[in-house]
Amino acid sequence: MGHVIARSPAELLEHAREGSRAALARLITYVEGSGAQHLETAALVYAQSAPYVIGLTGAPGAGKSTLTDQLITIALAHGSFDGDNPFVRVAVLCVDPSSPFSGGALLGDRFRMQDHATDERVYIRSMATRGHLGGLSLAVPDAVRVLSAVGFELVIIETVGVGQMEVDVASTADTTVVVLNPGWGDAVQAEKAGILEVADVFVINKADRPGTPETRRDLERMMDMGPMTTWRPPIVETVASDGRGVGDLWRALSDHHRFLAGGEREQRRRRRAAHELDRVLSAMLSEKVRTGEGANRYEEQLDALTAGTTDPYRAARALLFEA
Amino acid sequence: MGHVIARSPAELLEHAREGSRAALARLITYVEGSGAQHLETAALVYAQSAPYVIGLTGAPGAGKSTLTDQLITIALAHGSFDGDNPFVRVAVLCVDPSSPFSGGALLGDRFRMQDHATDERVYIRSMATRGHLGGLSLAVPDAVRVLSAVGFELVIIETVGVGQMEVDVASTADTTVVVLNPGWGDAVQAEKAGILEVADVFVINKADRPGTPETRRDLERMMDMGPMTTWRPPIVETVASDGRGVGDLWRALSDHHRFLAGGEREQRRRRRAAHELDRVLSAMLSEKVRTGEGANRYEEQLDALTAGTTDPYRAARALLFEA
Repeated sequence: MGHVIARSPAELLEHAREGSRAALARLITYVEGSGAQHLETAALVYAQSAPYVIGLTGAPGAGKSTLTDQLITIALAHGSFDGDNPFVRVAVLCVDPSSPFSGGALLGDRFRMQDHATDERVYIRSMATRGHLGGLSLAVPDAVRVLSAVGFELVIIETVGVGQMEVDVASTADTTVVVLNPGWGDAVQAEKAGILEVADVFVINKADRPGTPETRRDLERMMDMGPMTTWRPPIVETVASDGRGVGDLWRALSDHHRFLAGGEREQRRRRRAAHELDRVLSAMLSEKVRTGEGANRYEEQLDALTAGTTDPYRAARALLFEA
Repeated sequence: MGHVIARSPAELLEHAREGSRAALARLITYVEGSGAQHLETAALVYAQSAPYVIGLTGAPGAGKSTLTDQLITIALAHGSFDGDNPFVRVAVLCVDPSSPFSGGALLGDRFRMQDHATDERVYIRSMATRGHLGGLSLAVPDAVRVLSAVGFELVIIETVGVGQMEVDVASTADTTVVVLNPGWGDAVQAEKAGILEVADVFVINKADRPGTPETRRDLERMMDMGPMTTWRPPIVETVASDGRGVGDLWRALSDHHRFLAGGEREQRRRRRAAHELDRVLSAMLSEKVRTGEGANRYEEQLDALTAGTTDPYRAARALLFEA
């Protein structure tokens, strides 16, 4: 703890492995940012045995934080899903891209840190974008690898909503949990495309409220209408505020963990690597064409587009292939 | 009408300008697809005086189709916003990326076509992706330019929801209308980041139902908490089924049109051109690195990533700069 004197990612990693939270925090700040320290950290932590990553997504107020707290408690008590590691360290990354006017994640953290702050097996962190190439959705997998390098076996990523950002973050997770509340009706309808795409497990939290059977029925119908898959997401009812159903959620997570272990996990990780590589590629390209000597040519093409003397495909080809 | 014998985009454009709906439909099918005909069409229609584009987005069932029908009727009666063109032709593009299990847009169209099918000033079309480079969100601006080249002065784009896809489509619009219903509560909360980003005008449709004042208050509060802007989106209450409030919506659209005419429109169009160019660039790059001679190198890097012997940034640099 205390002051961080070492500045190089390698030194920080050493300190973090010895238990320094300040060093760990600095490393994650590095991967949130851009430039040499980010790239050095990313290279340092890449070759890690990957931790198990659970994604939790849902609307603000759906109960994600309370569920996460309950899951932390169970994980610390149970150990790893496959039972070969009774001592598990758990990290939570809170990602809220709407933060300009919410600020909720941070307040929530402070409140929750009180529960687990003294427990060295738990680390909770809000993530923000600080100029990372490609933004927060690329900083998150980097942060997961930092946590893995420091010895966290289980990482829970909390995101808000099901926009593209959240879908990208979900693609970092092995198991994605979509948290709803009873009586969502229209909202479920509105977001069903995104939800179906990412959900491995559905949770209806606050299931002591009216509308729970209807929400379950809507979800079942939605899955019936969707494409056939080898894994049909189970629907778990919870009341996170008093812990009801959280054991069922843990069992659903274990079931999905076992399902993935049957070969699916490696395929997913390859797809995930491809998805991440594609996003890094396009972020890097976009940086390349807009900075340094590329900047003038980019502005020229943009002028021509605005004036209507070229079309976007000709302009893009000129920038890509006529270097 | 009748059979389309001409196949080249230039011939089709000529026929479409003379009033052939079949030729127009073929051109839009070209821009939905990939390959030479798409690129030829895009190059042909790029340098058009841009039509005025209104984006309408909201959950399924919010009433977008009914509102659009009402807006068509008003537009045909009023002429252009600035009054210099009493005869306006209106096109509607319906975009529903969740179509695998909705199919709603198509049914809706058939129903609506009956209203306007005999009116040569109106053209309604559902869009699908047929392999267009970069998907539907890049096909839409191409289709808008086709419609402009054929003489449509007003284009209304209907999209479902506020995910990244819809934000991309909204960036094609001059004025984006977000349609909500009373009593959205949680849903507004869930989507507020996306909504604030795209909305120029809010509509609370079905405003004869309970919860309208609360929804208005939520929206006002949301805007109060958001960043200061030179245009504060007005909130219009409508009952589209009987036409109530649709005149107010038209006036809100006119106000925004006038606001944009004060210089903002050109800035927006430049931002839009940049946004489109960036998406074309990254789609083209992704195609380049994955096809032809690039395919093997891409697979090699992906293998190395999966094996943990490289990191995404090194892999991307190898693919981009070591050709």
